[in-house]
Amino acid sequence: MKTMNELCLQFLQDIYYAERQILKALPKMVKAAQNEQLKQALLHHREETEHQVERLQQVFEHMGKRARGQTCEAIVGITEEGDQMISEFEAGPVRDAAIIANAQAVEHYEMARYGALVAWFKACGMNEPARLLEETLEEEKKADHLLNQLAHSQVNQEAASSARAA
Amino acid sequence: MKTMNELCLQFLQDIYYAERQILKALPKMVKAAQNEQLKQALLHHREETEHQVERLQQVFEHMGKRARGQTCEAIVGITEEGDQMISEFEAGPVRDAAIIANAQAVEHYEMARYGALVAWFKACGMNEPARLLEETLEEEKKADHLLNQLAHSQVNQEAASSARAA
Repeated sequence: MKTMNELCLQFLQDIYYAERQILKALPKMVKAAQNEQLKQALLHHREETEHQVERLQQVFEHMGKRARGQTCEAIVGITEEGDQMISEFEAGPVRDAAIIANAQAVEHYEMARYGALVAWFKACGMNEPARLLEETLEEEKKADHLLNQLAHSQVNQEAASSARAA
Repeated sequence: MKTMNELCLQFLQDIYYAERQILKALPKMVKAAQNEQLKQALLHHREETEHQVERLQQVFEHMGKRARGQTCEAIVGITEEGDQMISEFEAGPVRDAAIIANAQAVEHYEMARYGALVAWFKACGMNEPARLLEETLEEEKKADHLLNQLAHSQVNQEAASSARAA
C-alpha cells in the first residue's frame, strides 16, 4: 500500500519536472513580450525559478532521494498552449495579454501543487521541507499578483483598444 | 492581426472543452474517494459545473458564436495525472489526499482562465459576459476553499497517520 511519503515524492517529481520546463519556457515568453515591464517581470521570475529548483533539490535530499523529474502532462499542456498563442498572435498588447494569462495558468498550477505539498509535509511533521516549499509558494502567489496588476493597470486596456481599432 | 475578441473566443473554447472534461472526470473521482464529505463536495461541484457549462453557452451566444470546445491540453494533462494516481493508490486517506490535490489543480486552472476572461471582457466593456463568468469564478474559488478545509480538518492527518502505520 502506497504511503503519504510516496505521494509527496510523486508530487515533488512532478513539480521538479514542471519547474525545469518553466525555466525553458520563460525566455521564449520574454522574447515574445512587447511590454517592457512584462519582460522584466518574466526575467525576474526566471531567476526566482532557479532558486525554486534548488529548494526542490534540498527537499529531495531531506527525503534521502535523488532529485529527478517525472513528466508532468499538465505543464506540458499549459506551455504548449502558450507556445501556440505566441505563434498565432502578432507582437503587441493582445499577445502580451495572452502571455500574462498563460503565465498565470503556470503560477496557478504551481500554487496548487506547492499548496498540497506544504500541507502534507506539515501533516507528516516534516517541518524543513514544509518551510522551504512555503517560501516558494509565497513567491508564486506574488508573481501571480504582479502579473494581475500589470494586466489591470496597462496591458488589458491597450489590448481592448487595439481590438476596437482593428 | 488577431484581436482581443479572438483571444477571448479562444479562451472560451479552451475552458468550454475543459469544463466538459471535468464533468466526465468528477464521477470517477467520486467513486474513487472514500471520505463521505469529499464524495459530497465532488458531487456538489459536478452540479455546479453543469451550470458553468450553461453560462459559457450564454457567453458564446452573447458573442454571436456557436458554443464549441477546442482541445485543452492542460486539462487533459491534469485529469490524466488524476486518473493515474487513482489507479496507483488504494482506496483510503492517502488516495483521498491525492484526489483533493488534483481537484484543486483543476480549480486553479479554471481560476486562472476565468480570471483572465473576466478582466478582458470588462476591459472590452462587455459587462454581461464578465458578470456571468465572475459568478463561475467565485464558485471555483469557493470549491477550492472547501477542498482546502476538508484536507486540513480531516484527510491530511489521517493520510499522514496511515503513512506512519505502514
